[in-house]
Amino acid sequence: MSDAATPADDVFARLSATLAGRRNADPASSYTAKLYAHGPDSILKKIGEESAELIVASKDGQRDSIVHEAADVIFHVMALLAFHDLSIDDVRRELARREGVSGIEEKQARPHGGPRPNLRGTA
Amino acid sequence: MSDAATPADDVFARLSATLAGRRNADPASSYTAKLYAHGPDSILKKIGEESAELIVASKDGQRDSIVHEAADVIFHVMALLAFHDLSIDDVRRELARREGVSGIEEKQARPHGGPRPNLRGTA
Amino acid sequence: MSDAATPADDVFARLSATLAGRRNADPASSYTAKLYAHGPDSILKKIGEESAELIVASKDGQRDSIVHEAADVIFHVMALLAFHDLSIDDVRRELARREGVSGIEEKQARPHGGPRPNLRGTA
Amino acid sequence: MSDAATPADDVFARLSATLAGRRNADPASSYTAKLYAHGPDSILKKIGEESAELIVASKDGQRDSIVHEAADVIFHVMALLAFHDLSIDDVRRELARREGVSGIEEKQARPHGGPRPNLRGTA
Repeated sequence: MSDAATPADDVFARLSATLAGRRNADPASSYTAKLYAHGPDSILKKIGEESAELIVASKDGQRDSIVHEAADVIFHVMALLAFHDLSIDDVRRELARREGVSGIEEKQARPHGGPRPNLRGTA
Repeated sequence: MSDAATPADDVFARLSATLAGRRNADPASSYTAKLYAHGPDSILKKIGEESAELIVASKDGQRDSIVHEAADVIFHVMALLAFHDLSIDDVRRELARREGVSGIEEKQARPHGGPRPNLRGTA
Repeated sequence: MSDAATPADDVFARLSATLAGRRNADPASSYTAKLYAHGPDSILKKIGEESAELIVASKDGQRDSIVHEAADVIFHVMALLAFHDLSIDDVRRELARREGVSGIEEKQARPHGGPRPNLRGTA
Repeated sequence: MSDAATPADDVFARLSATLAGRRNADPASSYTAKLYAHGPDSILKKIGEESAELIVASKDGQRDSIVHEAADVIFHVMALLAFHDLSIDDVRRELARREGVSGIEEKQARPHGGPRPNLRGTA
């Protein structure tokens, strides 16, 4: 379902900038400003809720709903990153870092347990 | 924490292609191939688990862990999208679509309830 | 924080009966009737949300909130059971069954993977 | 699926006592002792994972799996309560308290937002 360059290309960059700018905005001005005003726990609650909805959508197998719910999960993860003064670029950099690490090395290098997926060869 | 063009720029595109290619690979060849071989429910279970770990990391306030866990959530959402023959480009397109819709109109246009965040003005 | 017999002793039995009776009630009559009227997916979404809130409460370490959120999780699990014409008695019976099975035997007897906790010796 | 008094009647009490006793046990001695030894975050991660599995089981509509996964969620909630020196009796007491509060009053009495279900009249 992907095709070449579209206005969507930079939507993550635009959205990151928008989210960063909402952190001190009037809660009445937008959904995100209201989320921040309620405190970070309200973002965490939404991550739990939207993950559950993505699971439901996947079991239903309806592609439109899957895309909608995946967008909702990623939106709220990005809002959480912005709250911590991070952005999806940090996630990109982390995923790129994993490209250069074999799965077994990566696992051995981690102190706290579970495997982390990477993508070169062993993704 | 963002800076200019890096090798991370296209990591989502590369990862999408890698994930699509893993769907019929030997389960022993990679983490993702094993995940697909276990069936889509194993991806859904990981989404629940990784969301919980992201919540824990956010409460701990450790930036490295937040980035790690956010990357794990997004990786597994991308794996789920690939399972359904979708990709993060579909999510980008959905987020871009929301840029052009006011929050109130978006909510009214949706048949099934809860608000969806958008990003122009009301993000 | 436990003491002897209190009016809480049979609250699970009373709540199970109440939930079963709500399944065809007027949605305007109660929270649970509204939940059922919205369909089972609304219960699943609440399970995701309340689990996230329990995680947050545990990280905050506030005992009152932990009890509140644990009650919310268990309430919605019971509502889901009632939707499927099951009850917490079925969960009790399952947990009692695990008392008589060693962890290793239990794991070997299960076709689909992960360990299930039991409580005799290996709980 | 419920019938009269069975050995399952007191399983919650027995399990609460077992869980409390596991807190300082040798990690090699049982599943729960290992969970505690890994730290409370490992219980929180399991709550996210088991909630996801319960959602999957409910969508599949298989009664055995629903009971199994509901038991897993409740087991790990009870393990978390034990970690905080609480027990399912505290949850019972909280649910009993809600029996005596109308839904609307309950909601108004709460400072932080979302509704909490109760069960007299408005459950």
